Amino acid sequence: MISPALLTDLYELTMAEAYLRAGETGTAGFSLFIRRLPPERAYLVAAGLDAALDYLEDLHFTADDITFLRGTGLFSAAALNHLAALRFTGEARAVPEGRIVFGEEPLIEITAPLIEAQIVETLLINTLHLHTLLASKAARVVEAARGRAVVDFGLRRAHGIDAGMAAARAAYLTGCAATSNVAAGRHFGIPITGTMAHSFVTSFPSELEAFRAYAATYPDATTLLIDTYDTVQGARHAATVGQELAARGHRLRAVRIDSGEVGALSREVRAVLDAAGLPGVQIAVSGGLDEHHIAALLAAGAPIDSFGVGTRMDASEDAPTLEAAYKLVEYEGRPVFKRSRGKASLPGRKQVWRRYDADGRMAGDVITLADEGPPAPDAEPLLVPVMAGGRRLTPPEPLAAIRARCLAERTRLPDVLRTLDTGASPYPVAISDQLSVLSA
Amino acid sequence: MISPALLTDLYELTMAEAYLRAGETGTAGFSLFIRRLPPERAYLVAAGLDAALDYLEDLHFTADDITFLRGTGLFSAAALNHLAALRFTGEARAVPEGRIVFGEEPLIEITAPLIEAQIVETLLINTLHLHTLLASKAARVVEAARGRAVVDFGLRRAHGIDAGMAAARAAYLTGCAATSNVAAGRHFGIPITGTMAHSFVTSFPSELEAFRAYAATYPDATTLLIDTYDTVQGARHAATVGQELAARGHRLRAVRIDSGEVGALSREVRAVLDAAGLPGVQIAVSGGLDEHHIAALLAAGAPIDSFGVGTRMDASEDAPTLEAAYKLVEYEGRPVFKRSRGKASLPGRKQVWRRYDADGRMAGDVITLADEGPPAPDAEPLLVPVMAGGRRLTPPEPLAAIRARCLAERTRLPDVLRTLDTGASPYPVAISDQLSVLSA
Repeated sequence: MISPALLTDLYELTMAEAYLRAGETGTAGFSLFIRRLPPERAYLVAAGLDAALDYLEDLHFTADDITFLRGTGLFSAAALNHLAALRFTGEARAVPEGRIVFGEEPLIEITAPLIEAQIVETLLINTLHLHTLLASKAARVVEAARGRAVVDFGLRRAHGIDAGMAAARAAYLTGCAATSNVAAGRHFGIPITGTMAHSFVTSFPSELEAFRAYAATYPDATTLLIDTYDTVQGARHAATVGQELAARGHRLRAVRIDSGEVGALSREVRAVLDAAGLPGVQIAVSGGLDEHHIAALLAAGAPIDSFGVGTRMDASEDAPTLEAAYKLVEYEGRPVFKRSRGKASLPGRKQVWRRYDADGRMAGDVITLADEGPPAPDAEPLLVPVMAGGRRLTPPEPLAAIRARCLAERTRLPDVLRTLDTGASPYPVAISDQLSVLSA
Repeated sequence: MISPALLTDLYELTMAEAYLRAGETGTAGFSLFIRRLPPERAYLVAAGLDAALDYLEDLHFTADDITFLRGTGLFSAAALNHLAALRFTGEARAVPEGRIVFGEEPLIEITAPLIEAQIVETLLINTLHLHTLLASKAARVVEAARGRAVVDFGLRRAHGIDAGMAAARAAYLTGCAATSNVAAGRHFGIPITGTMAHSFVTSFPSELEAFRAYAATYPDATTLLIDTYDTVQGARHAATVGQELAARGHRLRAVRIDSGEVGALSREVRAVLDAAGLPGVQIAVSGGLDEHHIAALLAAGAPIDSFGVGTRMDASEDAPTLEAAYKLVEYEGRPVFKRSRGKASLPGRKQVWRRYDADGRMAGDVITLADEGPPAPDAEPLLVPVMAGGRRLTPPEPLAAIRARCLAERTRLPDVLRTLDTGASPYPVAISDQLSVLSA
């Protein structure tokens, strides 16, 4: 087992040693944010807070961790004792999961004794970065599908188990219908679904025998994979099985096409199924899909009912990382910042305020100092208190609630931000005068 | 806790139900391979076998898993009983970790009862894909650094914990010197190292005070981060501290530049340090580096001693996924394959044979059927038996041995493959006549 407390960069711990030695143990404020959006994204979906709060609540070094650290020769007995007793006792304000955020806007702000606040940097970034990255990608895929079901198929090519779990969760919270990941179904209560693999078809002497075997097992829940040999011939075999099922009072649910020119094939397959009297059998497609493929297929009128999306969504393939940063913004009540070229950061603990137009659409955000108050009476604050004294202020949110928030939130986006074209006019995010003066 | 057995696509389990019902429970051979290299890669480094074998040896469904599966309503009592008793009892042949492989060449081949062999698909792909992806990227970064130390800094932006752990391991096994990831140090025995964060500098009233505090703590192991405010001024502060340390019989190890035009800055910083009589203080750089940046810096003669590489290596940013596939190639002794357009697969269990030229350089591979024998007397087989009866044939390999293999292996690459230019002549991989005839 890997100890979460050791999932940190070594410098977090050597800095702790130096802080202790220097008596630099005051209260610190850190801000975690994405510096700027990648060109492929028009907005971000905040996610990962639940996992991040779990980590903070449970943070502790085990006896084995301390033994390992002692063995490095880098730490004094005083520092090892400090770490052995360390728990996260601070407070946190954060943007709820499922909300839309933009560059420079804090996802979470931590206020805690310096060593506690510093030591959590690596895993807080890792967690919030991963979930926000994946949710921000999945939201685009869901938007592109324009109401048709999207199913997460990506566990196999996500970057490990955490990423596969986070991807299934991110996909669902942004509006995907289901996941193929059984563990995600178990762990998060996400609907699970699946079809069959090519190996199922090839393990039988013929495609038709394979189809019949599966349909016999799941007479009302069968999706037949029809592209193993020849897709149109596969559709004919599926139609045969669909008719056999219908004759027995059952219904073939769908066919899936996983390769080839799926747009053109979907029309041919639809024609085969319709001609066989099976207009209710749906067509699912998969295989290297992303939001652009989906949008193009639907724009061309392809008769596709659902999309299985894996690799490109679960690895956020077109933008596989975000510029996540965790910066000290306040120490002992004094705002602090750095000026590194291209990486300057805004000082002080912050709030993000959002305004809406008369139609309820998001009209612009203002980043202010945390205690500055709203820039306008109707502005809504995005960061809310989530932790005090190292404990959550409220129980974990049900995933369904986060999903509902995310879906509602997206209807309030300006139309231009819901398109796939990220080059359109960017969403306005302003810096308050007080914050500007402090940064200057 | 997440049960490894549930980390699978639902269809693996519903196919198991259908296989049982159809009596389709013969012996199957599956082959896991990368279809083709992404344009950004000239070769792949096989990795992840140790984790994959761990998974196979430990595979079992817990009582809780079975309860969950029962609750889905998708499984018969017979299938649930089968799964509850299921262990992986098969055999595996694989390419040892650290070896170079190419498209279509199997990384692992599994021979086992069909349900066992099928059910492990998702996590086998997930594991071997992740490690091979990351090692293949890290090898390029190490090559670009031409002997200068590369340190893995990527945990924070790797896709989750597994990815951060796999990235640290992949970086080390391909030749990186160390990692900042403490848990990877603990778990894999990888050297750990670190410097300081900008927050360390900004938490003190002045940069010089911060530098002195750190140097007092680690008088012989300090790397000072000098770009928080002004890099050249930071170098002067570092020189002051370096001279103070030298006067007390200690030595400042290095300075780090994390932003700006690091090539030009490194020259200015080198001049400051040399003028201060500190020619032994090294210069480390970091911040958004990849193999192309590193190569350009070294080509321009920048006086840089080591590179901290994170995001772009640990997310394999330029090629964040590989086309990993796991295909049924043999069932009950009969070769099987599929013809899906663009996704056809070669039938039969295979072997990959490698030949070398008179200088010991890799001269070309031939993929043959497993029992075909070598295409030439001096050809070396890449796949070796690693598991029988569901148990490893040999203990896990020490990471140091894998690292030595990978470093030796790369010296045998044709020179053109060791450059960053992947458009140069590709490495020849042929298909044997017998395999070609079977595929036709």
